[in-house]
Amino acid sequence: MTQASGTLPPHAIPPYAVQDDDLALLTDLYQLTMLQAYWGEGMRERATFSLFFRRLPETRRFMLACGQQHAAELATRLRFRDAHLAALAETGLFDDAFLEWLGDWRFTGDIWTLPEGTPVFENEPFMEVDAPIVEAQLLESLVMNLVQLETVIASKAVRVVLAAEGRPVMDFGLRRMHGVDAAVRGVRAYRTAGLAGTSNVLGGLRHDLPLSGTMAHSYVLAHDDEEAAFRAFARRYPGTTLLVDTHDTPEGVRKVIALMDAEPGLRVGAVRLDSGDLGALAREARALLDDAGNPEVKIVASSGLDEWQIAALREGGAPIDGFGVGTEMGVSSDAPVIDLSYKLVEYAGTPRLKHSPGKVNLPCRKQLYRRHDAEGRFVGDVIALRDEPGIEGEALLRPLVRGGRLAAEEMALAGEARERVADALGRLPEALRRLDPGPGDYPVTLSPALQRLREQG
Amino acid sequence: MTQASGTLPPHAIPPYAVQDDDLALLTDLYQLTMLQAYWGEGMRERATFSLFFRRLPETRRFMLACGQQHAAELATRLRFRDAHLAALAETGLFDDAFLEWLGDWRFTGDIWTLPEGTPVFENEPFMEVDAPIVEAQLLESLVMNLVQLETVIASKAVRVVLAAEGRPVMDFGLRRMHGVDAAVRGVRAYRTAGLAGTSNVLGGLRHDLPLSGTMAHSYVLAHDDEEAAFRAFARRYPGTTLLVDTHDTPEGVRKVIALMDAEPGLRVGAVRLDSGDLGALAREARALLDDAGNPEVKIVASSGLDEWQIAALREGGAPIDGFGVGTEMGVSSDAPVIDLSYKLVEYAGTPRLKHSPGKVNLPCRKQLYRRHDAEGRFVGDVIALRDEPGIEGEALLRPLVRGGRLAAEEMALAGEARERVADALGRLPEALRRLDPGPGDYPVTLSPALQRLREQG
Repeated sequence: MTQASGTLPPHAIPPYAVQDDDLALLTDLYQLTMLQAYWGEGMRERATFSLFFRRLPETRRFMLACGQQHAAELATRLRFRDAHLAALAETGLFDDAFLEWLGDWRFTGDIWTLPEGTPVFENEPFMEVDAPIVEAQLLESLVMNLVQLETVIASKAVRVVLAAEGRPVMDFGLRRMHGVDAAVRGVRAYRTAGLAGTSNVLGGLRHDLPLSGTMAHSYVLAHDDEEAAFRAFARRYPGTTLLVDTHDTPEGVRKVIALMDAEPGLRVGAVRLDSGDLGALAREARALLDDAGNPEVKIVASSGLDEWQIAALREGGAPIDGFGVGTEMGVSSDAPVIDLSYKLVEYAGTPRLKHSPGKVNLPCRKQLYRRHDAEGRFVGDVIALRDEPGIEGEALLRPLVRGGRLAAEEMALAGEARERVADALGRLPEALRRLDPGPGDYPVTLSPALQRLREQG
Repeated sequence: MTQASGTLPPHAIPPYAVQDDDLALLTDLYQLTMLQAYWGEGMRERATFSLFFRRLPETRRFMLACGQQHAAELATRLRFRDAHLAALAETGLFDDAFLEWLGDWRFTGDIWTLPEGTPVFENEPFMEVDAPIVEAQLLESLVMNLVQLETVIASKAVRVVLAAEGRPVMDFGLRRMHGVDAAVRGVRAYRTAGLAGTSNVLGGLRHDLPLSGTMAHSYVLAHDDEEAAFRAFARRYPGTTLLVDTHDTPEGVRKVIALMDAEPGLRVGAVRLDSGDLGALAREARALLDDAGNPEVKIVASSGLDEWQIAALREGGAPIDGFGVGTEMGVSSDAPVIDLSYKLVEYAGTPRLKHSPGKVNLPCRKQLYRRHDAEGRFVGDVIALRDEPGIEGEALLRPLVRGGRLAAEEMALAGEARERVADALGRLPEALRRLDPGPGDYPVTLSPALQRLREQG
């Protein structure tokens, strides 16, 4: 194994999180050693790398391709700084001439991407990078890391949204997600997937999802009694949500009712249930509130919820008006990874293919076509060669970066991801919108030319 | 539900990752609304919050407490910037006077922490924060996010290290981890857990773990044939590792041998197996290499490995000299979360306790004592009140922050986490170092005073 070490220059205050300026260096060592080898061997021909996954997780019927357009945008502004080059020099693995070249490294190629939020299936390209191999190779590790996160999170979240059947779902996952980047970019994925709000202030402000919040048990406990806590918070935040399970849920609801009776001007928007049998407690709370003449006070629930539990609560008719979802959605606990690959499929104009028994490997530059029926419903996809004529359907891969420059009008479409997903959900076969696996696979076929190439390969 | 939105001021170039300057704003909305409520109610008394988990994941025998000292250090430098205050003002939830106060917010309290890498068990405090409630409350979301990541990753990784029984384990997980912060701080957790190296350049440079790398299939495929790729890479990087499974593993090994025969000066350090039956292929590769007089060429394996597969390979006697581990370790796929709680346990000198049927809630400021036998082995822990006299054992919680100031000499000890873990593994009961659950729980008891308080509560 090539082993090496080096040091970054000391900071007056060491950075805690990863700063944008350092992202070029967030790569696997072998990308840099391979780059130097290509460079030294004079291998400057254009390559195409294709980003796709081979297999859906067992508990997914489709994935939402997310993060690829943002990753492509970032690729156009990756730069190696002097501090990076100094640290790489110290490893002893790299020549001065190569490091000088790396200091001038810019991405000058093309990147084709699916629009943010496109539903995708096995073997379908999310992104294809056409560039000199010394540029396309370098993007691998970072692009995979970035796309993996948003795709995994959005694809879990959309199931939660579907299970809630129109009831608002709020992200409460900041504390459980894997680090600060996951928590913040996760909110972008949640926005795409259709969540109604987030408790995450930085995430919501940065990625344009409404902020949402209630109160914590600690607030109740810091007061002398629950009534005092409810009164102070509801006076301060008219229409807020009060957390009623600190001691006993029905008792908490009764205190909210007593408070509203005692102060008729006080508005309480909702009560939140955060423990126990949520279905039974919601029914009891609803009855108490209705009997007291407060049908306008809503009930929101949280406490380890996932799409299955929400579906069960909905099926059981629990009168819950909104769901706060954290842990299970925040790490996509049933499917925390997708087996993304970033494969060399063409070099110097020649198809390239790894021999992988039992695996589908598709050579050459490609395009993905989605076919619709007369009502606009998706009826099947065709993976074809990029320039193959005569393939029906909507061509989904679009050139977002050309010659290292971002097409601003294409990038602007990334902002419409939420609307795209909402629209696409209505066009997906109904079977795919169910949580359970079952009959109704989505047909993905290979074009005639790609089929021929595979058989030759 | 309190709902609100606002906008951060536009950036010339929007930041991609989370910058350190923005971390104060990485909190749940309710922390800020509760802060304003406390502030408005004149609630400035000191509170103590305790960070712990209630239940070990099924597949863990212990956790390594990681990230709490770094999070405490960060707490001393959190600041709200003008841009944050402007965005919060726009939500309409906050008064100008409160925002002015927030602009001056500093952490002035004390933080007691376990040293980085301490093995911990159910209900044991990782950290206790003693501060005015308006300071201690605010830390909750960010501290939990930060500690959760490093604790989850290190606690998975240490199992992989144990399974490898002294063979080096390398982190190959950058592409699968949840975002850029997880990938980089994950390397700090890997260092603590005892990994030998990482492929992650920024992570390794920043957190002082040797960089490690081989080559990718794309490098082989970009060349006209495998021999050409091996020759070019081995000439460029003497002693490197060659990836031999692009077409056929035994055939790849034969090509490496032929290359070494043809160029006697060429040094190949190892071959890497990345697919197929790793045990059988390793034996075949070892035999081929030994028969050809190359016993010094090592064999490293990767491909979806976790602690169970490594243990099976070790038990099967597979001649593998090192392991590259990515996906499963990178997201801790069998236990991607730990149910950390950050609970108010004392306010204004009074114990506070949420009523949670079936759950252990421990009021008041605490200390954790670990008892050793004559050989220094850990024989049991006692959770006690912070100032309770007469408890035997080593007091593990240490005051890292006093009056808002970091104790530099304590913080320096965080750098010794790797050595601390290596030492602690030898002191843990042997049963806990096994991968499988089984007899041999570690005894954690409550001190007499804490027991009495619980019974009264």
